[in-house]
Amino acid sequence: MSKEHIREIFLEMTPDDRTDVFEELPASVTKEFLNLLPIKERKEAMTLLGYPEDSVGRLMTPDYVAIRSSWSVYESLEHIRKVGKDAETIDIMYVVNEKWHLLDEISLRQLILAPMEEKVERLMDGEFQSLYASEDQEEAVKKMKKYNLTVLPVVDSQNVLLGVVTIDDVIDVYEDEVTEDIHKGASVIPFEINYATAPIFSLFKKRVVWLLFLAIAGFLSGSVISSFEGLLNKVIILAFFIPVLIDTGGNTGTQSATLIIRALVTGDLTPGKWLNVIKKEAIVGIMLGLALGLVLFFWSYVWQRDFKISIVISLSVVLITLWSNIVGGLLPMILRKLRLDPAIVSSPLITTVMDVLGLFIYFYIALLVL
Amino acid sequence: MSKEHIREIFLEMTPDDRTDVFEELPASVTKEFLNLLPIKERKEAMTLLGYPEDSVGRLMTPDYVAIRSSWSVYESLEHIRKVGKDAETIDIMYVVNEKWHLLDEISLRQLILAPMEEKVERLMDGEFQSLYASEDQEEAVKKMKKYNLTVLPVVDSQNVLLGVVTIDDVIDVYEDEVTEDIHKGASVIPFEINYATAPIFSLFKKRVVWLLFLAIAGFLSGSVISSFEGLLNKVIILAFFIPVLIDTGGNTGTQSATLIIRALVTGDLTPGKWLNVIKKEAIVGIMLGLALGLVLFFWSYVWQRDFKISIVISLSVVLITLWSNIVGGLLPMILRKLRLDPAIVSSPLITTVMDVLGLFIYFYIALLVL
Repeated sequence: MSKEHIREIFLEMTPDDRTDVFEELPASVTKEFLNLLPIKERKEAMTLLGYPEDSVGRLMTPDYVAIRSSWSVYESLEHIRKVGKDAETIDIMYVVNEKWHLLDEISLRQLILAPMEEKVERLMDGEFQSLYASEDQEEAVKKMKKYNLTVLPVVDSQNVLLGVVTIDDVIDVYEDEVTEDIHKGASVIPFEINYATAPIFSLFKKRVVWLLFLAIAGFLSGSVISSFEGLLNKVIILAFFIPVLIDTGGNTGTQSATLIIRALVTGDLTPGKWLNVIKKEAIVGIMLGLALGLVLFFWSYVWQRDFKISIVISLSVVLITLWSNIVGGLLPMILRKLRLDPAIVSSPLITTVMDVLGLFIYFYIALLVL
Repeated sequence: MSKEHIREIFLEMTPDDRTDVFEELPASVTKEFLNLLPIKERKEAMTLLGYPEDSVGRLMTPDYVAIRSSWSVYESLEHIRKVGKDAETIDIMYVVNEKWHLLDEISLRQLILAPMEEKVERLMDGEFQSLYASEDQEEAVKKMKKYNLTVLPVVDSQNVLLGVVTIDDVIDVYEDEVTEDIHKGASVIPFEINYATAPIFSLFKKRVVWLLFLAIAGFLSGSVISSFEGLLNKVIILAFFIPVLIDTGGNTGTQSATLIIRALVTGDLTPGKWLNVIKKEAIVGIMLGLALGLVLFFWSYVWQRDFKISIVISLSVVLITLWSNIVGGLLPMILRKLRLDPAIVSSPLITTVMDVLGLFIYFYIALLVL
C-alpha cells in the first residue's frame, strides 16, 4: 500500500479505532504512521496514546460538540450544523465554560424540543455523569449500564472536558470482561487474544500454570487414600466408587460456585448476604444429596449386591454434596469480602478441594460402617 | 396503594418496562391493571403482550417518531418538536408511506445538518436494518452488535412499522444470555431468576437433573476400575493416583472446551476450522502433557520411591492430557456443526467423559509396564 493509501484509511477511522490499531503496532511503526496523519489527527492520537492500556483515556474520542451556557437554542443548533459533521455523536452536547470545564450535558432532543430563543442555561439542570480519563474502562461499562447511557463525557482531575466515550466501544470492553470471567471459571489465565489467531505458546502458558498447581495439590487426595490403605486392601470395591463420589463433590461445588460468582458479578447478590447463601446452599445441598443418595444406593446395590457398601456410598454422597454446596457457595463470598477476585474459584479448583474433603468423608464413613 | 397511585406509576413507565411488569403478574391481576390504563396505553400494552416471551415484539416500544418522504427538513423538525416529547428516542426517525410501510430511517443528526428546505426523500438512501416482531430477542442483540446500532425498527411480515427496540433493553437480554452460557458451563440448567430471590425448589430442580445424569454415568468409571481389579489388588498404590490423573484429564478438557465454546460464541472461531482446532489442541496438549508428566514423575518418585510406578503415572498423564485436549476441543465443534448447543459440553460433563478414558489409559499402561 502507498503511504497515501494508508493515510486515507487512517483518516476514515474514528480516533478511538485508530488508537486500537496503533496499540497493536511496534513503537517504531506507530511513530512512522503517526507522521502520516495531519497535525490535528496526530495530536489526537498522541493524546489518546498517553493513557494506560485499560484506561478510559484510551477509549475516548475527542470528536464531541461543546456549547456555551450563554448561547440560545438557535445559536447552539447553528453551531451543531457547522461542527457536527465530524462529531462521533451529536445526540448529547456538552456545556463548557471559557476554561473548558464541564458544566452540564444537554441532549439534542432537549434542544430540538425547546423554543428557539431559549437560553441554554435555562435548560441546564447540572445533573450528569462523567468519567476520569485515568479510570479503568470497566467503570465506563458499569456507569453506562447503571444509568442507561449511550455516551459519557471524560474529564481530567480539574474537570476539564477531554473527550467522550460511546457505547459501541464500551460493548467491546464488556465482551472482553465476560470472556475473562469464563476463562477464569475454567482455570485458564484470561487472555485478550482471539483463539483462532493465538500463538501455540501463549495458549500453553495461559493453561499450564493452573494445571501444574492443581496436579500438585492433587497429591493431597493421594495422601488421603494412602492413609486408608489398610481398609482399601481389605475392601478393594471401595476403589470402584472413588471417581463417582469425588466427581459428584466437584460437580456440586462447581454449580454452587458458578451461581454465586455470576450473581456477585451481575449484582444480584452482595457479599453481606453470606448467611443467606449458607442457609440456601445447605438446604439445596441436603435435597440434592438425598436425591443422589437414593439413586446411588440402588445403583450400587444392583451392581455389587453389598448392602453395607451401598449404605457407605449413599451416606457419603449426602455429606459430600452438602459440604461441596456450602464450600462452593461460601468460598467466592469470602474472596469478595477480602476484596479478592471470586472468579479464582474455578471449577477445576473446587474439584480439587472437594476431592480431598470427599475422600476423607468417604473413607471415614467406610471405616465406621464396615 | 390506591388505584390512582398504581395508575400513575404505570403511566410513568415506558411501554416495554410495563410489559415486563405485566408478564410477572398472574393473568387476572394483569387484566385488572390493564383496565387502569387510559385506552391508548392499554392498547399498547395489549399489542406488546401478544408476542411470544422471548420475541422482539415483547422488547419493542411503539414510542417512535415517523415522518414522510415528501416532507421538508423544516416540516420534519416541526413534527418532532410536536410529538417528540413522548418518544423513547428521537435520534432516529422512521420514514413511512401512507400504509405505514417502513421506507428508510433518517437520523436527527442528518436532519440537523441538512438545509431546512431540503426534502426528506433527498436524504434517503434506503439502507437500514430492521427486525421482525416475531424474531428471537437474540437477533436484536446480534444486529446491534454487528452494525453498531443503538436502536432498531421492528416490522411485521408486511413490512409495516410496529415499534422500535432500544439498546438499553437489549443489553439486559445480552446479560441474561451470558448468564445462561455460564450456568450451562457448570451443568446448571440456565434460569432467568435472580439467585438472591430464587426459590429453593427451583434451584434444586435446575441442578439435580445434570447431577443425577453425571452420577449414573460415573458408574462407567467404576466399571473400568473393577475390570482391572486383579491388577489393583496386587498394586494398591495405583489407587492413590486415581484422583490426580482423572482430575488432570477433567481440568485439561475443561480448559479446551471452555476456550472453544467462548470462541464460537464470540465468533472468533467458525465450525469450519475444526482441523485447525485439532492441530492446535494436539500440539498444546503434548506440551502440557510433557510439563505435567515431568512434574508428576518427580513428585510421585519422591513420594513412593517406585521407578516403574512413576513411569506409569507420567506416561499416563501425557496421553490423558493429549486426549482430553482433543476431546474437549473437538466436542463443542461437532455439536455446533450438528446445529446443537456447544455449551452442553460443561466442565462436569467433560470431567465425567475424561474419567472413563483416563482410567482406561492409566490401567492399560500400568498393565503393560508392571
